[in-house]
Amino acid sequence: MYIGIDLGGTNIAAGLVDESGKILYTKSTPTLASRGYKDVISDMNRLVKEIIEESKVEKNEIKAIGIGIPGLADKDGNVIFCVNLGWENIPLRKMMEEELNIPVFIDNDATVAGLAEYEFGAMKGCESGVLLTLGTGVGGGIVLNGEVYSGAHGVGSEVGHMIVGENFYDCNCGKNGCFETFASSTAIIKYAQKLIKEGNTDTKILELAEGDLEKINAKIIFDCAKEGDKVAKMAVDRLVKYLVIGIFNIVNFMDPEVIALGGGVSNAGEYLLNLVRQEYEKNKFFKTLPAARIELAKFKNDAGILGAAMLGKHGVK
Amino acid sequence: MYIGIDLGGTNIAAGLVDESGKILYTKSTPTLASRGYKDVISDMNRLVKEIIEESKVEKNEIKAIGIGIPGLADKDGNVIFCVNLGWENIPLRKMMEEELNIPVFIDNDATVAGLAEYEFGAMKGCESGVLLTLGTGVGGGIVLNGEVYSGAHGVGSEVGHMIVGENFYDCNCGKNGCFETFASSTAIIKYAQKLIKEGNTDTKILELAEGDLEKINAKIIFDCAKEGDKVAKMAVDRLVKYLVIGIFNIVNFMDPEVIALGGGVSNAGEYLLNLVRQEYEKNKFFKTLPAARIELAKFKNDAGILGAAMLGKHGVK
Repeated sequence: MYIGIDLGGTNIAAGLVDESGKILYTKSTPTLASRGYKDVISDMNRLVKEIIEESKVEKNEIKAIGIGIPGLADKDGNVIFCVNLGWENIPLRKMMEEELNIPVFIDNDATVAGLAEYEFGAMKGCESGVLLTLGTGVGGGIVLNGEVYSGAHGVGSEVGHMIVGENFYDCNCGKNGCFETFASSTAIIKYAQKLIKEGNTDTKILELAEGDLEKINAKIIFDCAKEGDKVAKMAVDRLVKYLVIGIFNIVNFMDPEVIALGGGVSNAGEYLLNLVRQEYEKNKFFKTLPAARIELAKFKNDAGILGAAMLGKHGVK
Repeated sequence: MYIGIDLGGTNIAAGLVDESGKILYTKSTPTLASRGYKDVISDMNRLVKEIIEESKVEKNEIKAIGIGIPGLADKDGNVIFCVNLGWENIPLRKMMEEELNIPVFIDNDATVAGLAEYEFGAMKGCESGVLLTLGTGVGGGIVLNGEVYSGAHGVGSEVGHMIVGENFYDCNCGKNGCFETFASSTAIIKYAQKLIKEGNTDTKILELAEGDLEKINAKIIFDCAKEGDKVAKMAVDRLVKYLVIGIFNIVNFMDPEVIALGGGVSNAGEYLLNLVRQEYEKNKFFKTLPAARIELAKFKNDAGILGAAMLGKHGVK
C-alpha cells in the first residue's frame, strides 16, 4: 500500500491507496502556507501518521509515500521552488523520511496526475503520453516508456510556458505568448472579457455572470457557446485554435501515443473534445500519418492523491 | 563494422565505419531522385556492395547498415515520406535486406546526426540531448536515455514546425509561425532581404552579394554582423531571439542535458554561440535553476555517414 499526498496551495489532501489504485482512506487539512514550510511539512507528517493509525494498517505495509507539489523538485527530493507556497530549496524528502522512516518520492502535480492517467485512466496501456492540465494555468505530465518523465534536471514538462504566438496580455512569468495565456481558464475568461469590453455585448455571458465582468468563469463561457452564443463561441474557438497549436508543438516534437486533456477547462467534456479533435485533424500535415490520439482525462480531484501514490509505487519498484 | 548511408536530395554518401566511429572508406553517387525510388535504392545497394568489395572487408564483418533519410520512417523501416525525393510508403528496409542480407535501420537525417553528436560529439557523455540542424529548414535529433528518440510512431523530433510566433511569411508546410521560418538560413536571408527592401540600405550585405538580393546568404549576413553592420546585426538578433524561444520551448518541455547547434547557420561558430548563450541566460525564469547547456555541434558533413552507422550499431546491439 502507498500514501499519496496532493500538496495544493489551499489544501493538503492525503490518501491511502492500494496496489490496484483504490483509494481506501483520505484525510485533508488546510495548507496555510504563510506559516512557513516547517509547519506545513509537520502537518503532512501528521496526516500520514493519522491515516496509518485511523485506517488500522501496519506501518510496514506502507511501501512508499508520493507527493505531488505545485512546483518543481530535483531528483533528490528537494523542492527547487513552489511559487504559490513561497518555497525555495526545501529538503522535503529528507525532512519527511527522517520523521516517518518511509521512502518519499516527489514530483510536480501535473506530472503526478499524468501518472494516474497512465496507470488507470486516459493513457492506460500506452508507453507514452502527455496530460495537459488546463486550469488557472497549464501544466503537463509526461509519461515515457511507462515512467514519469521530468527531464535531466527534474524541471521538464513545463508546457504552460512554451511560446506559441503573440497575446494581448503578458504571462505571470513576465513573457508574452506562453501557451497558458491561450489555453487556460484564465485565458478564455480574459479573452471573453476583452470581447465584451470591446463592444461585443450581444451575449448571455454577462447575464449569467450577474452583469459583473469579474464573475465570468470558464463554465459560463462554455455553457453559452454550447447554446450558440456568438461571443462565447469566439472565445472557445480561440482557445481551441491555440490549444491545438500547443498540442501539435508537443506531437511534432515528442510524438506520444496519446494527449489527455485535464484540468478545469476539460470539464467542458465531449463538447470541447470534439472541437479539439476537428481542429487537430484539419491541421495535420499528412492526414495518413500516424499521430497521437486526443482524449479527455479520466480523473478530476482524485488524480492528485492517486497519482502521488503511484509515484511512490514506481519509486520503490 | 557498420555501413552508414546519408541519403540526401542531391547525393547518396555511404561509408564504412568501425566501432570507434572512424570512417574507413567512403563512396558517393548522385541521387537523381526523379528516376524513382527503385533506381535510387538499387544504387544504395550497389554502393554497399562496392564498399565491401573495394575496402576488402568480409561481408559478415558488417553487422548492420544505417540510413539517414530526409523524411520520416516508421518503426518497421518503411519510409512514410521524403518530400524532396517524392517518396511515400516505400518499404526501404525490406528491399535492402532482401538484396543484401544485412540488417538495415532507418531514421530521419537530423535524428541520425544527433546520434553522431551523442556518440562522439557535443552530446557525448549525456543521457539526453537535442541537436538542432539549422539549415535551409530546421531539423531536430533527440537522444534520450542514450538512444535516439523518434516517438511512438517514428514521426517525432520535427522541431522545425513547432509554432513559436507570427511571421511575415508562411512556411512551406502552409502554416504561419513555424520555428524554421525564424531560425533557418532561409529565415535570416528572407529577413535581411525584407530589411533592405524596406529601405535599410546602409549595409554591406548587398555589396557582398554583388548587388543582387537573391545572392544574399547566411554567411554574408553573419560576416557583416561580426563587423558591426547594423542591418546584418538586426537580422542576426532576430534569428537569435527566436532560436532561443525555440530552445526554451524544448528545454521547458523535455529538459535535456544539452542542446547542440548544427547545420549551416552554426558555421557562424563561437560568434553565434555567444549570442545564443547570452540571450538564453537573459531569459531564464530562475537563474539558479539547472538547465541544458548550449553547445556547437562537432560534426558537419560527416555527421550523416557517422550517425547512420551508429544507428546500425544501436539497432543490432
